[in-house]
Amino acid sequence: MSQKKAPEKPTGNHTSVEMEMADMVGKPLGGPGTQPTKPVRKKSSESMTSDPDLYYSVEDLRSEPPPGEPVSNRIRPMLGQGKHEAGALFFKDGYRRIDYVLAFPVPRRKHPVKVEHKPEDDSSAFHPEGEDQKVRRRREFEKNLIEAGLDLERDDETKDHGMCFVRLHAPWKVLSQYAEILKIKMPTKKIYELKERTGIKAKAYALWRKTIKPLQPSPQAKQVDKEPYKHISYTFSRDKEHMFLIENRDTFFLPSTRSLIVHEILKRTRYSQKDYAIGITNLIAQGVYTAAYPLHEGEFEGDTDIPPNPRQMLFDEWGSYSKFVKFQPLNLIRNYFGEKIGMYFAWLGLYTKLLIPSSLVGLIVFLYGVFTMDDNVPSDEVCEAYNITMCPLCDRECKYWRLSDSCKSAKFSHLFDNEVTVFFSIFMSLWATWFLENWKRKQMELNYAWDLSGFEEEEEQPRPEYEARLVKHRIEQSDKTGQGYGSASGNAEDSGMGEEVKLPKKQTLFAVGVSSVTILTMFTVTLAAVFAVIMYRLSVASALAIYPNSGQIVSGTAVTLNLIVILILDEIYGSVAAFLTNLECPRTETEYEDKLIFKLFLLKFVNSYASIFYVAFFKGRFMGRPGQYIYAAPGLRMEECGPGGCLYELCIQLSIIMAGKQLIQNNVMEIGMPKLKKFLRECTCFGLCKERAERAEDKAGPRDTRWEEDLVLEPFSGLSPEYLEMIIQFGFVTIFVASFPLAPLLALVNNVLEIRLDARKFVQELRRPMAERAKDIGIWYNILKGITKISVIVNAFVIAITSNFIPRTVYQYMYSPDGSLHGFIDWSLSTFNVSDFEPGSEPRDNRSLGEVVQFCRYRDFRDAPWEAEPYKYNLAYWHIFAARLGFVICFQNFIIFLRDFIGYIIPDVPKELDEQIKKENKIMMDALIHEENVRQGEVEMDPEKEPL
Amino acid sequence: MSQKKAPEKPTGNHTSVEMEMADMVGKPLGGPGTQPTKPVRKKSSESMTSDPDLYYSVEDLRSEPPPGEPVSNRIRPMLGQGKHEAGALFFKDGYRRIDYVLAFPVPRRKHPVKVEHKPEDDSSAFHPEGEDQKVRRRREFEKNLIEAGLDLERDDETKDHGMCFVRLHAPWKVLSQYAEILKIKMPTKKIYELKERTGIKAKAYALWRKTIKPLQPSPQAKQVDKEPYKHISYTFSRDKEHMFLIENRDTFFLPSTRSLIVHEILKRTRYSQKDYAIGITNLIAQGVYTAAYPLHEGEFEGDTDIPPNPRQMLFDEWGSYSKFVKFQPLNLIRNYFGEKIGMYFAWLGLYTKLLIPSSLVGLIVFLYGVFTMDDNVPSDEVCEAYNITMCPLCDRECKYWRLSDSCKSAKFSHLFDNEVTVFFSIFMSLWATWFLENWKRKQMELNYAWDLSGFEEEEEQPRPEYEARLVKHRIEQSDKTGQGYGSASGNAEDSGMGEEVKLPKKQTLFAVGVSSVTILTMFTVTLAAVFAVIMYRLSVASALAIYPNSGQIVSGTAVTLNLIVILILDEIYGSVAAFLTNLECPRTETEYEDKLIFKLFLLKFVNSYASIFYVAFFKGRFMGRPGQYIYAAPGLRMEECGPGGCLYELCIQLSIIMAGKQLIQNNVMEIGMPKLKKFLRECTCFGLCKERAERAEDKAGPRDTRWEEDLVLEPFSGLSPEYLEMIIQFGFVTIFVASFPLAPLLALVNNVLEIRLDARKFVQELRRPMAERAKDIGIWYNILKGITKISVIVNAFVIAITSNFIPRTVYQYMYSPDGSLHGFIDWSLSTFNVSDFEPGSEPRDNRSLGEVVQFCRYRDFRDAPWEAEPYKYNLAYWHIFAARLGFVICFQNFIIFLRDFIGYIIPDVPKELDEQIKKENKIMMDALIHEENVRQGEVEMDPEKEPL
Repeated sequence: MSQKKAPEKPTGNHTSVEMEMADMVGKPLGGPGTQPTKPVRKKSSESMTSDPDLYYSVEDLRSEPPPGEPVSNRIRPMLGQGKHEAGALFFKDGYRRIDYVLAFPVPRRKHPVKVEHKPEDDSSAFHPEGEDQKVRRRREFEKNLIEAGLDLERDDETKDHGMCFVRLHAPWKVLSQYAEILKIKMPTKKIYELKERTGIKAKAYALWRKTIKPLQPSPQAKQVDKEPYKHISYTFSRDKEHMFLIENRDTFFLPSTRSLIVHEILKRTRYSQKDYAIGITNLIAQGVYTAAYPLHEGEFEGDTDIPPNPRQMLFDEWGSYSKFVKFQPLNLIRNYFGEKIGMYFAWLGLYTKLLIPSSLVGLIVFLYGVFTMDDNVPSDEVCEAYNITMCPLCDRECKYWRLSDSCKSAKFSHLFDNEVTVFFSIFMSLWATWFLENWKRKQMELNYAWDLSGFEEEEEQPRPEYEARLVKHRIEQSDKTGQGYGSASGNAEDSGMGEEVKLPKKQTLFAVGVSSVTILTMFTVTLAAVFAVIMYRLSVASALAIYPNSGQIVSGTAVTLNLIVILILDEIYGSVAAFLTNLECPRTETEYEDKLIFKLFLLKFVNSYASIFYVAFFKGRFMGRPGQYIYAAPGLRMEECGPGGCLYELCIQLSIIMAGKQLIQNNVMEIGMPKLKKFLRECTCFGLCKERAERAEDKAGPRDTRWEEDLVLEPFSGLSPEYLEMIIQFGFVTIFVASFPLAPLLALVNNVLEIRLDARKFVQELRRPMAERAKDIGIWYNILKGITKISVIVNAFVIAITSNFIPRTVYQYMYSPDGSLHGFIDWSLSTFNVSDFEPGSEPRDNRSLGEVVQFCRYRDFRDAPWEAEPYKYNLAYWHIFAARLGFVICFQNFIIFLRDFIGYIIPDVPKELDEQIKKENKIMMDALIHEENVRQGEVEMDPEKEPL
Repeated sequence: MSQKKAPEKPTGNHTSVEMEMADMVGKPLGGPGTQPTKPVRKKSSESMTSDPDLYYSVEDLRSEPPPGEPVSNRIRPMLGQGKHEAGALFFKDGYRRIDYVLAFPVPRRKHPVKVEHKPEDDSSAFHPEGEDQKVRRRREFEKNLIEAGLDLERDDETKDHGMCFVRLHAPWKVLSQYAEILKIKMPTKKIYELKERTGIKAKAYALWRKTIKPLQPSPQAKQVDKEPYKHISYTFSRDKEHMFLIENRDTFFLPSTRSLIVHEILKRTRYSQKDYAIGITNLIAQGVYTAAYPLHEGEFEGDTDIPPNPRQMLFDEWGSYSKFVKFQPLNLIRNYFGEKIGMYFAWLGLYTKLLIPSSLVGLIVFLYGVFTMDDNVPSDEVCEAYNITMCPLCDRECKYWRLSDSCKSAKFSHLFDNEVTVFFSIFMSLWATWFLENWKRKQMELNYAWDLSGFEEEEEQPRPEYEARLVKHRIEQSDKTGQGYGSASGNAEDSGMGEEVKLPKKQTLFAVGVSSVTILTMFTVTLAAVFAVIMYRLSVASALAIYPNSGQIVSGTAVTLNLIVILILDEIYGSVAAFLTNLECPRTETEYEDKLIFKLFLLKFVNSYASIFYVAFFKGRFMGRPGQYIYAAPGLRMEECGPGGCLYELCIQLSIIMAGKQLIQNNVMEIGMPKLKKFLRECTCFGLCKERAERAEDKAGPRDTRWEEDLVLEPFSGLSPEYLEMIIQFGFVTIFVASFPLAPLLALVNNVLEIRLDARKFVQELRRPMAERAKDIGIWYNILKGITKISVIVNAFVIAITSNFIPRTVYQYMYSPDGSLHGFIDWSLSTFNVSDFEPGSEPRDNRSLGEVVQFCRYRDFRDAPWEAEPYKYNLAYWHIFAARLGFVICFQNFIIFLRDFIGYIIPDVPKELDEQIKKENKIMMDALIHEENVRQGEVEMDPEKEPL
């Protein structure tokens, strides 16, 4: 329909704007001689404008709203005023939006700096030796920014000290040009009508929508078209500009896209003629600028803006704890923070949502345990076993004990070790796969909704640290060979490829070697810590053996000790990983991130799970048998599982570590740290604080500007820590879930809080990050997949080895006289003749209930002392052993099969979406062909044939 | 460098060409009144050209080579001649290339057909009722093709009978327009310098290249730049035309791209105003045209062209058996047949190449077996066991036998069942993963080299069969509701989405139900066939039991029977799968293919492997024990594995089926069938044959034209059968490789032939297919992955259960007195008291070596008759059982771990390629930005700053 209008020709006349750069070169920009905020840009065709407070180009004149159009809320007219409104997001002219801010400090100085235009020497390329060097680079950089088409507004640099800001605005010409080059997709006027569902489906869907309506964020915050159609997006192209849905050129590109484009320019702009002298990252690393950031869109609280600005909306709809039951306003997040951060929150949201069913099932499984606790044959038998005398749990000091003493823990262990555990393990393994499949689909949906499908990655620039190291290396090389450094690298830019710009393998290999050794050492440290806790438990246990109920105390303190060790080591490992990665000095930011993540994941994973693995698979397996115990240290017998069984201990270990870790690490530290850091930063921010303090005292004075407020915020430091935290939690939820069905519930509660906590952090505490694009969650997906795989085999072994499921089943189907579990406890205990104790290891008290003990019982399947080969594993042992292994095979392959089957039946791309995408491509292609034909006049304008 | 030239402006002036379409409408194009090959197109600005044999548009005049330029070999000037040269690939003017040919038959008729222009009724939309209907559609279709910008050349339609041809040419305007819309990447003038390797690497690489040089196809056929740089490709765009490497507009787009673009137009062009009346596929389905195809580029043999045309090159360099050691000329294949077919041959080539190492290892494993045959303790013990009397192999007729009788087969079985088997299984499992990883990389390389990275799939058109069914359904519906059909669907095209254009679920569900039931029935048939062969073997074996050595004969005939059944069922299943898929009537071609593949794969997979699975896991497992045999039918005891063991039988089964299947199915039938089909088609080709025969008699007469020759060829029917054949073979190579280490060698020999066979078929026997684009091998990759997964678990079980590896190992490490295998044979046999035979099942002859037998031995681990519980499984049995299961767990998880590890360390995208792609993107983006700046005059032309 819409294209029946005469095609809107771009209104801009592409008059070429030539500038007189000559008068820029060589003169200091911010020297004392220049006027405050003097225009940096001139036009050759016109004389300088009379108003010295405005910078503008020919194109920018178009930014003024046409006379008839209402002035939108976001563009407040401030023409002619010489000052910024407090918190304003625009240049002083009130029209040009500030898309990026560069900040640098002005040092205290006695006399004005004289900047001479002398050639830089090479070694200084990365070691600027003074303030004049910095000023020169800033000047060159800003000149090149203007050349690239950006508009600049600069603070008065003459003031004695404090921060100076350069504000950047990207005019339409630059935006449209880069949008085309970066292949950014934008909505066109073409619309796609969404299918109306019919029949029962439609009703069910309407009902469903009605049900979840209270959970949706407010419509304002959802930011989607309500109508049953959608504007098709297409890679932006200037010569097809009339096809795009441009209501207002100033607001056509989202603020996040604008900041992305400006960042792209900042990345590519030179600041000196030297090699590698490109990009804002290097400048920040050299201290030429302190920071570069896009602005937040206003205050996050208060009623300053009506309607609320996006930041306020985010804070109210997303960051508020009272909204914890609601979905996140993903589109708003993406529009504000960009796709990469949007992806993280979409992932976190989906994970949390899918935790609901698994929490429910976990709760039901737990409740099943609670309600069947009293009907359980084996624990009843334990409670009634007054006459079964058990062998002592430690040498000498421990006494014989009656099996009925462990009645309570037997009942308690039934909570977690019952028939439904196997079912729950299968459920959770499939749940994990289902979650990943769902995420793949969600990702596709987001890719489509956020127009990411055409996005390709481009070569990244090397990190400044890498470049510095490289230059250093070259200088060393040229010193050795005697050649000048400059001549060797002079024409690096001339060839398409440039010359080999890599550090030699030797240096890298050395760093990798150091890393590997350190990581192995750290593993040893972790294991040593686990072992230390074991030794603590053993020695305390044997010391306290004479006191009744000392077991609980020992276990409790040991687990707490474990937790503390884990928390401390986690912090240490964080620093170690960063240190090692810096040592390796990877070339690009992505490589850096990948390597750091890999190390962090390895170290923290092992740290978090080592003690749990020990309890699950090693504790009580290598203790020998009465009369032939194995000793960890002289006098310290290897641990035996408590009277409740190993699964029970595993459960306690897991729940305490998981809950404690989440409570302390994720919440307490995550809330506290940013506040602390902000406080510290405010005190050290290059004199700004003093100004602020002064201003705060003088209440009538000007309020802080937006860029000053934002500078004080914490810079965004990547999503890795957020992801890692969640991944470790995902491990708790899946890997050992067989032993602790409440883990998903615990995770759910944590994550509901976590989302709001993270949201507040992003809206409130962090500087606005540059809006990066990302199609997926990157390496994390593979890590999740790996954890899912590990979880299947670990769960299989937990059920087969740690729990009593297999012995019970074998007894029930092979040994029980009546097919019930009656007699299981007696069957699962072997008999020991106390005269076979090793000398010195027999208990001091050789009596139980007043009688001298002749035979005691222990948990194992061995022949009795009176049989041909006493204490040899009996047939039942081998039956159970074979059954355990058989179970592992069946369980694992069953899950693998089901998992692949689920992966097969759930298509990666939702079917409707797939159809829609293809349909849209077709509509768009038809429209383009039609367009062509119209343009070339081959087809008369026949309304009949015109495709919509 | 290159862009320093002044940018070449596109030379075409886009004068709009308006045509007088009015005089086209309503007049029959091919009617008897029209002149032969009268120009179909007129120009409004010029009067008709004087030469009535030429059709041209303004743009086409540019196709003539400029005076100074040498006339390239492929563009032979034929201006002014009124006839086609025999075998010519151009219009009569000698310049315009024929990009596509449409063929239709002219029926014999008594009087000229009168075509009236009457409105069609709806029901006839898919049931044209006569020749005039067809003529009308052809006319409308061709009119619309001309409107879309194609040039047409048409045969004289007045001749009495025979085939009529319409030749299509896409002029530059159409090509460039569609190349832009289809986002086809083309080489630009920007070059990327390939990295020169240095140091040892470079020398090793040079040596490697020198070594494999004889294996490379001739440089002519390789079609790559030799220089160490490469032209960067970028999505074609007309307004950046000067950036592309256009030497000659006529040859800029490859013939395959040209045919792709013409096909795209053919797909989109209407032939009537009715719904769905779009596209050449429908027209072919309705018989309006017989065929539509691009032309082969000349004859495949003979010295007609010097230098040889691409088809000749393909035939010589690729289709020749003498070139069997050489790599395939992949670029040439891709340029000729398109990316999809190129992918298949690249995949086949890689698979064959990687079969070489596995064949070698397999051969070594086999030779190890041969050389250690005489040093093998267990088989020596068997050969010396004169005094061990074995229980008879069947009831009544069979005799007691001495173990030493099976000496030969024991030795033979050592060939395949030795210590190295486990190693080889692990190797092959990893090999399969390695192959898949390599393929992923190769795919990425091809995607890059063939410029496929930007290619997105678009919505497909429904298949003609689906549309016909849909129209039928709608007519039924409108009959029911009483509404006219036309009014219900009148404005389907008006909305963006169209109305619900799908068949109701009920119809689909019914078809799916029928399919499922049929497939299950077919499975039953397969199993029944396997069972029938078993019964054959059992009954013949017991009938021939009295003859010595009858075992070999029975086995041999049974396996041959199996093979024959498999071959016959394979053919039947092919038809069944096609029938069922047609019944389901999927909407698009892709869906059709996927469903067909799924059915074919299921049926053929089960068919090929059922008998092998039986031998591996069921034969001899369920035979009971002496005195308590299990019977398959009265008097027919369940099969026991022969004296050589089960693995030996598996090996024979596998080798015969694999070799037989490949020899007969792949080679004999694949060579024979096309020749037979061609012969049949030549006799039924609408009278063309007669013409040809007449012409052949009249040797001085004109030779066949290219399009006549190509029409007689077999149409291309998809790659599924080719892939399926290879996938089944891949299954033989991986799934049961533990039992037959020579399988890879067999596959290798077959594939080396297969490549050349397929090549000849494509070059010689098939019509040239439309050059489809494809980024990958689609569903086949997942099937391969699935087979790899199955292979791991099957191999684990084959080693654990079928082979003697586990019992040998258990004996050696748990039971052997001296750690050797001495005594293993005796240990692995249990003892049976012949008095415990069930009455009637004891052998007639109760003597062995003249003595009455009291105890006989059998292969099992049971207690002796004199122990407490005779014939109960003993401890050794349970040890072995646990060991078997433990082995499966270890083997499977070890392989899974190694597999994932290999997947992790081999990146999907080769590192160098990844760097290169990113670098190219960056260079291209810099160039574009520079381009922009130059165009807008913002940067002076400063050669210093210009990025290359």
